[in-house]
Amino acid sequence: MLNVLFAGSMKDWPDYEPALTRALSEAGITAQIALPDAIAPEAVDYIVYAPSGPVSDFTPFTRARAVLSLWAGVERVVGNPTLTQPLCRMVDEGLERGMVEWVTGQVLRAHLGLDRYGEPQDGRWDPVVPPLAPERSVVLLGLGVLGAACAGMLATLGFRVTGWSRTPKTIPGVDCLSGPEGLHAALSRGEILVTILPNTPETENLLNAETLAMLPRGAVILNPGRGTLIDDAALLAALDAGQVGQATLDVFRTEPLPSGHPYWIHPRVTVTPHIAAATRPLSAARVVAENIRRAEAGAPLLHLVDRARGY
Amino acid sequence: MLNVLFAGSMKDWPDYEPALTRALSEAGITAQIALPDAIAPEAVDYIVYAPSGPVSDFTPFTRARAVLSLWAGVERVVGNPTLTQPLCRMVDEGLERGMVEWVTGQVLRAHLGLDRYGEPQDGRWDPVVPPLAPERSVVLLGLGVLGAACAGMLATLGFRVTGWSRTPKTIPGVDCLSGPEGLHAALSRGEILVTILPNTPETENLLNAETLAMLPRGAVILNPGRGTLIDDAALLAALDAGQVGQATLDVFRTEPLPSGHPYWIHPRVTVTPHIAAATRPLSAARVVAENIRRAEAGAPLLHLVDRARGY
Repeated sequence: MLNVLFAGSMKDWPDYEPALTRALSEAGITAQIALPDAIAPEAVDYIVYAPSGPVSDFTPFTRARAVLSLWAGVERVVGNPTLTQPLCRMVDEGLERGMVEWVTGQVLRAHLGLDRYGEPQDGRWDPVVPPLAPERSVVLLGLGVLGAACAGMLATLGFRVTGWSRTPKTIPGVDCLSGPEGLHAALSRGEILVTILPNTPETENLLNAETLAMLPRGAVILNPGRGTLIDDAALLAALDAGQVGQATLDVFRTEPLPSGHPYWIHPRVTVTPHIAAATRPLSAARVVAENIRRAEAGAPLLHLVDRARGY
Repeated sequence: MLNVLFAGSMKDWPDYEPALTRALSEAGITAQIALPDAIAPEAVDYIVYAPSGPVSDFTPFTRARAVLSLWAGVERVVGNPTLTQPLCRMVDEGLERGMVEWVTGQVLRAHLGLDRYGEPQDGRWDPVVPPLAPERSVVLLGLGVLGAACAGMLATLGFRVTGWSRTPKTIPGVDCLSGPEGLHAALSRGEILVTILPNTPETENLLNAETLAMLPRGAVILNPGRGTLIDDAALLAALDAGQVGQATLDVFRTEPLPSGHPYWIHPRVTVTPHIAAATRPLSAARVVAENIRRAEAGAPLLHLVDRARGY
């Protein structure tokens, strides 16, 4: 009998308790899942974790064999000095699918100019036929699991897709650039730019006054990645100058985005409330169970975080 | 030397003259392309046609071997009693691609609830995570070249896709229903319903008070097909009753849609000005040239209209 501690957000417990129970059972694992007040720290074998949960000091969990994050982004835990156990990110099929849907929908919204037809309509019949996808260049910064999945779907739709990543990658139908020298070339093609990088010291403020100036004039920016990727003051200045035509932002340095924030009222900024990639309990629980099964079998863990790189 | 008459819309001549010249040359055909005032009707070998062009009486074109429509919809010419020549519809790669992009973009707009985040935003952080595509049922009425292409792309995105057509069809990843007996079942699944049928006597007012009532309550209707598919008064009543949640319409019985039409001002109707499937001169000219090449070689014409069926 393994002891699995649920240290996610307490509001998610009603969804996760049945999902984890079922997923562990389906994986052939005999375990009890408990909240912190129902189990002694030194008895815990695995910690299911979210930064919004109750655990911030991992020291008492002397027996824990892994910390299994429910979040894809681990920047709030990776530098925790009390964390000595292996840490795994969440790579959830539901999360990936949700990200692909959000990115594809937002790219098509920009590409087709759907906002032209918002309410109220003025009764003016003014046919403007948008270009076809092969005439539209879309750039993704970040080609991890989520970025690569989005790039592939956009290529399937026929867009000219460029991807940029720290290290070289190969994705069918996607022109892959990499490293500092590839960034300028990638940005210069960004009619529609999607930022889908993790939050690391190297990616902080990657979009700043200098890099925003490398985009084609009037570029559309979609950020479903991390709020820290963007220098907010530089983006607002680029929007006001017309260098950036529109920005749709799903993530922010402070969430919820404070009600007085300029993004809320800017006419060319759309705020979505961190919904692009939500972890779904059913599929996330299967990932957690699979990693516990692997750890018990002595197999390599999935989505293990490289502590030096930070993701 | 063949004589090809351009009887499309005169405003499109500057685009089509170079496109047709190039496409015919690439197909190995020696031809001159001319406007009606530059060529005698009895000398014309092929007629490139649009209903918005200058030809309505085909009697004088005694030598013409085919009428090659630049439009996908042929309802304005198929019943013309002076038309004795073979008639071909346009099936243009650009048109198909444009239709797939419009339909995919509008389905994702409805699925993701993008209109929740329109301007002005009220500063309220209210995360509502949309369901994933496998939890969303999309129904297409019409599985011709365009409908099948849209159904395939929506299935690739993961939606639960049902298609309905007059005669039985098979499309991978799509649950295909057919005939009058399949229509009720198809409509009952139409959380998002796409109408992409030709205009024929059988499809006129296919969406009426009776069939709209078969949809799930709050259904979204997307019509990039033909204006005649919908009984407009019945749709407006269903919108006002909440039976239909939203309608996005690209085609109308009268185009341009008159400025006083209720669709323009209805808060849950989006009008787009017949842009879903625009024929693109470069790709359309290649289809025309290929059919002339086939006719000259004695090969079967592509996209030949069945005059009895009307498309």
